Amino acid sequence: MSEIGEILERIKKEVTPSKEEVNKLSEIAEKVKKRVEEASKIVGVEAEPLVVGSFAKGTFLKGEGDLDIFVLLPKHLGRGVLNTLGLKIAEIASHGKGVKAYAEHPYLRFYEDGIKIDLVPALKVEKPDEGLTAVDRTPFHLQFVNSKLDDTLRAEVRLLKKFMKGVGVYGAEARTLGFSGYVCELLTIKHRSFLKVVEEGARWHPPTLVKLTQEEYKGEMSHLVVVDPTDSSRNAAAAVSRESYAKFIAACQSFLERPSLEFFYPKEVEVSAFEYGEKHSRNLVLLVFETSPLVEEVAWSEIRSSAKGLGEHLEKAGFGVLGVWFYAKDTHAYVALELTRIELEPNEKRIGPPVYLREHAKRFLQKNFKKAIRGPWIEGEKWVVETKRKKTSVLEYLENDSSIDLAPDIRRAYKSKRVFVNEHAIAELKKSVEAFKEFAKFYHRRPTWLSF
Amino acid sequence: MSEIGEILERIKKEVTPSKEEVNKLSEIAEKVKKRVEEASKIVGVEAEPLVVGSFAKGTFLKGEGDLDIFVLLPKHLGRGVLNTLGLKIAEIASHGKGVKAYAEHPYLRFYEDGIKIDLVPALKVEKPDEGLTAVDRTPFHLQFVNSKLDDTLRAEVRLLKKFMKGVGVYGAEARTLGFSGYVCELLTIKHRSFLKVVEEGARWHPPTLVKLTQEEYKGEMSHLVVVDPTDSSRNAAAAVSRESYAKFIAACQSFLERPSLEFFYPKEVEVSAFEYGEKHSRNLVLLVFETSPLVEEVAWSEIRSSAKGLGEHLEKAGFGVLGVWFYAKDTHAYVALELTRIELEPNEKRIGPPVYLREHAKRFLQKNFKKAIRGPWIEGEKWVVETKRKKTSVLEYLENDSSIDLAPDIRRAYKSKRVFVNEHAIAELKKSVEAFKEFAKFYHRRPTWLSF
Repeated sequence: MSEIGEILERIKKEVTPSKEEVNKLSEIAEKVKKRVEEASKIVGVEAEPLVVGSFAKGTFLKGEGDLDIFVLLPKHLGRGVLNTLGLKIAEIASHGKGVKAYAEHPYLRFYEDGIKIDLVPALKVEKPDEGLTAVDRTPFHLQFVNSKLDDTLRAEVRLLKKFMKGVGVYGAEARTLGFSGYVCELLTIKHRSFLKVVEEGARWHPPTLVKLTQEEYKGEMSHLVVVDPTDSSRNAAAAVSRESYAKFIAACQSFLERPSLEFFYPKEVEVSAFEYGEKHSRNLVLLVFETSPLVEEVAWSEIRSSAKGLGEHLEKAGFGVLGVWFYAKDTHAYVALELTRIELEPNEKRIGPPVYLREHAKRFLQKNFKKAIRGPWIEGEKWVVETKRKKTSVLEYLENDSSIDLAPDIRRAYKSKRVFVNEHAIAELKKSVEAFKEFAKFYHRRPTWLSF
Repeated sequence: MSEIGEILERIKKEVTPSKEEVNKLSEIAEKVKKRVEEASKIVGVEAEPLVVGSFAKGTFLKGEGDLDIFVLLPKHLGRGVLNTLGLKIAEIASHGKGVKAYAEHPYLRFYEDGIKIDLVPALKVEKPDEGLTAVDRTPFHLQFVNSKLDDTLRAEVRLLKKFMKGVGVYGAEARTLGFSGYVCELLTIKHRSFLKVVEEGARWHPPTLVKLTQEEYKGEMSHLVVVDPTDSSRNAAAAVSRESYAKFIAACQSFLERPSLEFFYPKEVEVSAFEYGEKHSRNLVLLVFETSPLVEEVAWSEIRSSAKGLGEHLEKAGFGVLGVWFYAKDTHAYVALELTRIELEPNEKRIGPPVYLREHAKRFLQKNFKKAIRGPWIEGEKWVVETKRKKTSVLEYLENDSSIDLAPDIRRAYKSKRVFVNEHAIAELKKSVEAFKEFAKFYHRRPTWLSF
């Protein structure tokens, strides 16, 4: 047995759920389904429970089983009932323990016997159609996947999911912008084994088109398209960012060259010696926002785009941004920026209008003639002046949010943000074990699976 | 009389050559012409002297009269004779005092009674033709200008020349890349007065086309075209750089708004307090080259292009170039660079190939895996690594010329260059009064005529 073969056999065993786990989940599923049926009678609507998700497809990883149960309502009632009757049924079926959450539709989440259960109201749709949401489409995905998978392939799907998790590209949500479980299943169905998916992945280059049927793809092209076999106009991998796509390709290449368990079980990163300022003349600036409780999905996409906005703001100002990190948890959002410098030169050279835009040039000269440290002079065809900067420190540049591209909730929280520099930033991060662990990964940068 | 009128009347008087000066030049010209005729008999060629240049056109500035005398040889002898018979005649006519110099053709320069005389061998051409050089064309320019100018217009030409000199855009040579005397004459002939030229100039914007005849311009367009009336395919202002063009426009605008004598008599710039490092955190780096004696024209164009190459080299390396100055005199060439910093951060972030260029990526990883300070990691779709810089100081970056775009003579002199920083640079510059005066203008940057 080859080295790769040994590793894969070992992982396969370690991620296959035990009979006990499957039985436990089945029992709970049956109970909850019954309660949905009972609740639908109480509410007086013909609702039908449907177990979907990785449990229904038999592709969940050992120890990570949870339940996604749809509460299917007759289509003719319309979407309006999902928020009312649908949630009412879910509430009764959860024995009042359900907490409201939002994806495309609102749903209830609760725990039973340590198992996370999502009860999701949805309309019962007869066939895949153009106007459907991702939620509406779920039953068709389930049907397709189960028609294609046998237990051998299920084991391969689990290998792929574990690999994706290990290298940090599993999950289509805003936090990761990676590969969903459904995409893992489709790739495995297409290529028939984990190893074949990895071999293909190692050769991917943009644009990559993966099709399971003969039908022509009718949607938009992007770096990665995995055509949804239940709807040939839909890219099931639309959430996969260019970075996740690239990380997956690189991990595939690396795994084939130097296969190891690291790809499935990432090492924890040591975070002992932070060598910001003194050793490497890098600087770390941390912003901490306290926001109203946000839906996780919203929080991550807001902090992601705000971090980008902050990075661009400081880069434009001349601070030399080396890296941007962000993290969100409950009511806390973090952005960390690695900068080349935290203090700018006292002067700046400002480029004005070309001399032949006479009125603009005149205004520029009037404005700058007296306050100039040098000039105005002509460079190329433009007036140029050297003036004293109004702001030189990064803290001053972060004071006002008006020229920073921020997401709405972060902008709202901006005034009360806290800012920390270098060792103070590290100290603040250490207050949250999870945040610090994530930051350490960012700080070290090198993927734990990469070796040479 | 208006303020502008008063100024112009005063300048006109001050730049009109005295009768004595004109007479003296005439006498010398007649003498030299005779000697050319005699010399041509000695050599045995039918050579004809022709006084050209600003003296022949009556447009020279008081105290600045010199003589350009062509030695016209029969065309049928061909260009080959210019270097032999032509120079021989000039040599005899200069009484052996002539020093060889080069423009398009070689010529002799000598002094008599304090007057500079250039004796330029040329072929006698009947009419302007396509194949002509600037030298061949000179007699036709002379003919055209003299057919259009009267004494009133000559005074206006002198005003324009003095203005161009004062604002630093007079002269088509490599040092200035500005307006030639001929272009000054053409602009005055076109617009009929100095003031009208300035009013037009203040309104110029690129592309500017100035035509004296109805003929269509047949040459290339650029920011400024002054069509040569003796050849409609030639731009008489081709030498005018975009910066000289812009400076002239700005000076015209400024003169109309706040007329003053400054435009004609630039103030000497004070160079007392140099405030490089300490006050403004700017840094000055000076390179001094000793070259073999170069033709002035070659020296200036070499040092100009080498200064540009040096500026781009340091900008690319990250030193933040604020200004580039250059100067050439005899066997010395100077380049001064104003930098934001003279020391780079110890580390640098290096962007590698995208992950899907598999072989490139592999080589990048192999090369950087061990020596990386951080990473390699994936950013966007590319491998990135943080490594220790091999060089951090500007002196190290200037050591080797292999990646710097330098002109041939400067490259030859590069190994033996001397480099000075901040106060040492100032001290070195002070060793040459002329160089330091020029540097002071650059350092102060603001045109002396600009006021608000």
